[in-house]
Amino acid sequence: MSILIKNVILDGQKRDILIKGNKIGKIGKNLNLKADEKIDGKGEKAVLPGLINCHCHSAMALFRGYADDLPLKEWLEEKIWPLEQKLTKEDVYWGTKLACLEMIKTGTTFFNDMYWLEEASVVEEMGLRAKIGLTLLDFLPMGDKENIEKNWSIFKKKKLKTVSFSIAPHSIYTVSKENLIWAKNFAKKNNLILHIHLSETEKEVKDCLKKYKMRPVEFLDKIGFLNENCILAHSIWLSEKEIKILAKRKSSVVYCPCSNMKLASGTFPYLKFKKAKVNVCLGTDGAASNNNLDLFEEMKFASLLQKIKELNSTAASSKEIFEIATKNGAKALRVNCGEVKVGKLADLILIDLNQVCLKPGYNLISDLVYSCSGNCVSDVICNGKILMRERKVKGEEKILKEATKRAKRLTRL
Amino acid sequence: MSILIKNVILDGQKRDILIKGNKIGKIGKNLNLKADEKIDGKGEKAVLPGLINCHCHSAMALFRGYADDLPLKEWLEEKIWPLEQKLTKEDVYWGTKLACLEMIKTGTTFFNDMYWLEEASVVEEMGLRAKIGLTLLDFLPMGDKENIEKNWSIFKKKKLKTVSFSIAPHSIYTVSKENLIWAKNFAKKNNLILHIHLSETEKEVKDCLKKYKMRPVEFLDKIGFLNENCILAHSIWLSEKEIKILAKRKSSVVYCPCSNMKLASGTFPYLKFKKAKVNVCLGTDGAASNNNLDLFEEMKFASLLQKIKELNSTAASSKEIFEIATKNGAKALRVNCGEVKVGKLADLILIDLNQVCLKPGYNLISDLVYSCSGNCVSDVICNGKILMRERKVKGEEKILKEATKRAKRLTRL
Repeated sequence: MSILIKNVILDGQKRDILIKGNKIGKIGKNLNLKADEKIDGKGEKAVLPGLINCHCHSAMALFRGYADDLPLKEWLEEKIWPLEQKLTKEDVYWGTKLACLEMIKTGTTFFNDMYWLEEASVVEEMGLRAKIGLTLLDFLPMGDKENIEKNWSIFKKKKLKTVSFSIAPHSIYTVSKENLIWAKNFAKKNNLILHIHLSETEKEVKDCLKKYKMRPVEFLDKIGFLNENCILAHSIWLSEKEIKILAKRKSSVVYCPCSNMKLASGTFPYLKFKKAKVNVCLGTDGAASNNNLDLFEEMKFASLLQKIKELNSTAASSKEIFEIATKNGAKALRVNCGEVKVGKLADLILIDLNQVCLKPGYNLISDLVYSCSGNCVSDVICNGKILMRERKVKGEEKILKEATKRAKRLTRL
Repeated sequence: MSILIKNVILDGQKRDILIKGNKIGKIGKNLNLKADEKIDGKGEKAVLPGLINCHCHSAMALFRGYADDLPLKEWLEEKIWPLEQKLTKEDVYWGTKLACLEMIKTGTTFFNDMYWLEEASVVEEMGLRAKIGLTLLDFLPMGDKENIEKNWSIFKKKKLKTVSFSIAPHSIYTVSKENLIWAKNFAKKNNLILHIHLSETEKEVKDCLKKYKMRPVEFLDKIGFLNENCILAHSIWLSEKEIKILAKRKSSVVYCPCSNMKLASGTFPYLKFKKAKVNVCLGTDGAASNNNLDLFEEMKFASLLQKIKELNSTAASSKEIFEIATKNGAKALRVNCGEVKVGKLADLILIDLNQVCLKPGYNLISDLVYSCSGNCVSDVICNGKILMRERKVKGEEKILKEATKRAKRLTRL
């Protein structure tokens, strides 16, 4: 399978791109090559790497708008958890489909998920790339070690094209020390990424200080949890010492500005991480606390929140923020994508330049980060397969309909 | 001229709406009436009042993305002002066209502008509603009193349908005390709104304290500037006493979250204004400091910035924020719109509900504020005239092309 993309703007120049199999095979001028499929950008589309969402709970797209403007405790305990307990596999199936459709339509080609393992097959069907978490959670039967070992023995044998796995202990306050140690050993043995929530709220830090007599990162470091395969979502309430530890261990942190603002969790210390050279990635979190999965919007929030936090308009430039949404995510997830270069995986998006948000067009990256939403994306290719063409995705009407039905049933129960 | 809108969702119910002339004539079930034009929502579109942008510099759409991530002084003095000095009437014409196109495509039907008077004719051409400022500025010849009096004598005689005027002294640091007094008398005499920038930066307050020995609002109150016809853009660095004065004088303030964050100006004290019952409206500011004119995105920023500022997830609910973007704007600008009710001006937008950002669809206002961008708008009606139908606006290709040409010429000079 091959795709020839003609006349697209890459770094300001008109180029042709040949995709062979699932990789970028050639980039050049006027490539006259045969290919199974052709897309012509006519000099009016730009090509960029697909965006990478490093922290998501995809099936929660089914909860979008169900509960807002509430205190965190009430939101979680009285709204989200009761609804989650009613979720069937069918609900998760259509919720994940809805999330995948949203990500495709807003230019995300790769996401790092923590929810139900069953999402894996949906993601494959939809053609996106994902790391799906084997979620470890002390208070849920499906989240126990035995279940994870059983699931892993099943899933590791499946021949999956775009889906791989992580081990995802939910957090230090929902997973015991013993189970966290088990998780890091399981990750090492099976060469898996570790994905965990960390220091999202100040309360979590205070509780940790009480329970373990040290701060969360210090605790995780002490049990040998931290290394370059570790992805820490949120990472808001960190001391200078904790940031230094993360830098030393080469772990990655995920900035989720919309969720952090909407839930009033706190402000991610971006400039401190940058100074310490910690790898910063970008995430939307679930749609229940965002309320969308549009990384274009997330990039604008990511930059503007830092500027106002620091009262410094030069903080978190559009160029930096575009990198955390692409290259840095690929690095954290250890996948060969996030850039438009020969040899990289063919996870690409095309942007139709004939749109108001991109005019007059002095600076493409600025326009994408500060002016456009994900609606600027016209075409999406993931793993060498076209997932969206001229904003049309196969089967989208059915997904919208079924997701609405499932949500109605859930809230009627 | 009449329009019959069939089968649209209004406050959760399927309704028909008859527009007669420029007003909403009838709202009911199954209206079988004749009309010159028909739109059928088929039960799959919602109807809402058009959004109202209370602070904009529309022609600056031409500067979108030209200068970002710079210190305020450098941004203004080395980038924006030099470019503004090169502007011709033709540039302003196409810049305003670009801004109007953007507002139509993102569901804004009414904006309060401060820039060149020449914008008025473009706005009429495009069919939007606007208050255009007669801008008073001490250091520009076109901004002097004589010029404003001359312009006003010309423009007040013009038969304009959707455009009316304000008198817009730029700020207390660019307009002398004497000229501010002249402006407020001019406004009173001619029954005009006053539109001014106020306390956008801390520096402005400090300079005012030095020059006038009092804070900006105290100064404006002392010269009799403040009343219910006064619209104060930004209003960030205010004392409790100043907020009380504004409440007493019934003036309106305009919250511009994206611009305030992007320029790192400071955070609007929304909850204090709310408590004091000051009328709060919403604005995008110009595209050079935003970088778009999409009020849907602005609503999300407006809410989320308050939640993180106060570390309170219940602050600035979606319902409140939707009101500041509609009803409150109409009140400030003294125009009979901002609600879908019989007798109100027919400034309406339709939302296509078959979109990912609106699914599963528990709460329309939450979805619009937290999940969608302005791309969710399918049809726009202003003053009883259809400006956009199924996302198509007449002449949009030409506007994009010409605006790009003008920008290229400007930066080549």
